Amino acid sequence: MTIDSEMHFADRLIDAVRAKRTPLCVGLDPRWDSLPQKIGARHGDTMHGRARAYEEFCSRVLDVVAPLVGVVKPQSAFFEACGPAGMTALWHVIRRAHRHNLLVILDAKRNDIASTAEAYAEAAFHAYDADAMTINPYLGRDSIEPFLRVGRPLHRGVFVVTRTSNPGGGQFQNLDSDGKPLHRHVGEAVGQWSQENLGQSGYGDVGAVLGATSPAELRELRGLLPQVLILVPGFGAQGATAADAAGAFRADGLGAIVNSARAILFPFQPPDPGWESQIEQATRQAIHQLAGQTPAGRL
Amino acid sequence: MTIDSEMHFADRLIDAVRAKRTPLCVGLDPRWDSLPQKIGARHGDTMHGRARAYEEFCSRVLDVVAPLVGVVKPQSAFFEACGPAGMTALWHVIRRAHRHNLLVILDAKRNDIASTAEAYAEAAFHAYDADAMTINPYLGRDSIEPFLRVGRPLHRGVFVVTRTSNPGGGQFQNLDSDGKPLHRHVGEAVGQWSQENLGQSGYGDVGAVLGATSPAELRELRGLLPQVLILVPGFGAQGATAADAAGAFRADGLGAIVNSARAILFPFQPPDPGWESQIEQATRQAIHQLAGQTPAGRL
Repeated sequence: MTIDSEMHFADRLIDAVRAKRTPLCVGLDPRWDSLPQKIGARHGDTMHGRARAYEEFCSRVLDVVAPLVGVVKPQSAFFEACGPAGMTALWHVIRRAHRHNLLVILDAKRNDIASTAEAYAEAAFHAYDADAMTINPYLGRDSIEPFLRVGRPLHRGVFVVTRTSNPGGGQFQNLDSDGKPLHRHVGEAVGQWSQENLGQSGYGDVGAVLGATSPAELRELRGLLPQVLILVPGFGAQGATAADAAGAFRADGLGAIVNSARAILFPFQPPDPGWESQIEQATRQAIHQLAGQTPAGRL
Repeated sequence: MTIDSEMHFADRLIDAVRAKRTPLCVGLDPRWDSLPQKIGARHGDTMHGRARAYEEFCSRVLDVVAPLVGVVKPQSAFFEACGPAGMTALWHVIRRAHRHNLLVILDAKRNDIASTAEAYAEAAFHAYDADAMTINPYLGRDSIEPFLRVGRPLHRGVFVVTRTSNPGGGQFQNLDSDGKPLHRHVGEAVGQWSQENLGQSGYGDVGAVLGATSPAELRELRGLLPQVLILVPGFGAQGATAADAAGAFRADGLGAIVNSARAILFPFQPPDPGWESQIEQATRQAIHQLAGQTPAGRL
């Protein structure tokens, strides 16, 4: 099955999940200190070398995981840390993902207002050709709308960072206002933006990033925002279990994707012969965990 | 006077303001549609051409404004929109600014947690060598601390986006919790992070981006957070006047920088012979406005 880039973003995402029968999203977070030894040695520890090493590593990861999952999420920060060469690597990685017919969510957490926000959207959707990107809501509605103005005609999506599960995530997100925490205010706004442009699948093109802080909280938001696609980060190495993520799904097993990066990318210890088969195994294991403990098993 | 990169960031910023006797910061926000005609025509309307045109334009702007101001603020978004070539242009622009002995604040509004936030800090401080960067607070303390872990040993600074003056800026920032708007909670946290590492000037290396929403509000925050450097955006074309920004300064005329981008970069209409002298004139005018209506006149 080929993803039709003229389809509504949410429909493409749902199709990608259905085609592979898993809501697993593979995070592409390359880290220099964790790379297979030969790849690091081949390119060398300069900014340019790291960029080339990240490109090789992520490309080979894509070749391994493409038959198994429908969605990948490159983390812009690690590519940016390599300077301009890192962005060339990111461009090649996204192109390769598309050749594998994978949906690409660029994790960039961008935010600004007016034409500056439009420039960020142009970067993600035009220059790097991501299918969706993550954005930060702190600057309010006129910092969100420019991403939609640029993205919607191109059938792209955004995921608004709503609730994160890092230890300090509650410092501001949990501040109570009018009997609701800030993240709930953000979540409700996401619901409204999402309603503006629903796909045939019934989901909108404005999703929410919701950490698996508690299954009950996820379940409550799932119920409140039935048309919002949820991106759950941190599955695996960052501590969230498949059971924690379960609340993000609707009863049909759809409506959410669950990202795992480190646990899939770096299951090996140096020396690391056969690292690709270890990544394949880790991916299959993550898919199995999600299938066994969430409604995704019904896909 | 040469800026000593081994000095505390705040001391370097205060020195830069004192050396040029103005708190004006020139924003480098290149826009394709507004460039001088000859520059656009020379490089051509491709992503690569835009990147080269932005580099030429910003470089020539730096040559004009360097004798007049101490601080510049490139806007990452416009360079990012040109793809990897845009990042090469950004790198060259920052290097040229440093050769002019200008302090560089990279406006990137980055945010993430843990090692991902560290990678963003490495990008800004190592790969692009900015003296400071803007960051977004939504993810809380463990999304701020990684920037300080990377930045402090290098004597770099951050400006936390605290209160923005765009029409929708209040949607979340003004939500009241415990009798205080969200942006005040953020401002108080900025005050605490800033206290952790004060320079000889008495200012910390964690500043606040505070829009000139009202002079009274700025004055109140100035009083509450005496050691916090304030970056006031939007002077000129975005509507803030010198009088609006006045509240951000301490009585000695220090403690704040005021950014103007469009009004300085694009005062000319096509055709635009002599655009550089128009930029020089616009810069002098902005300096004069700030000197006449704020305590900066006493520098």
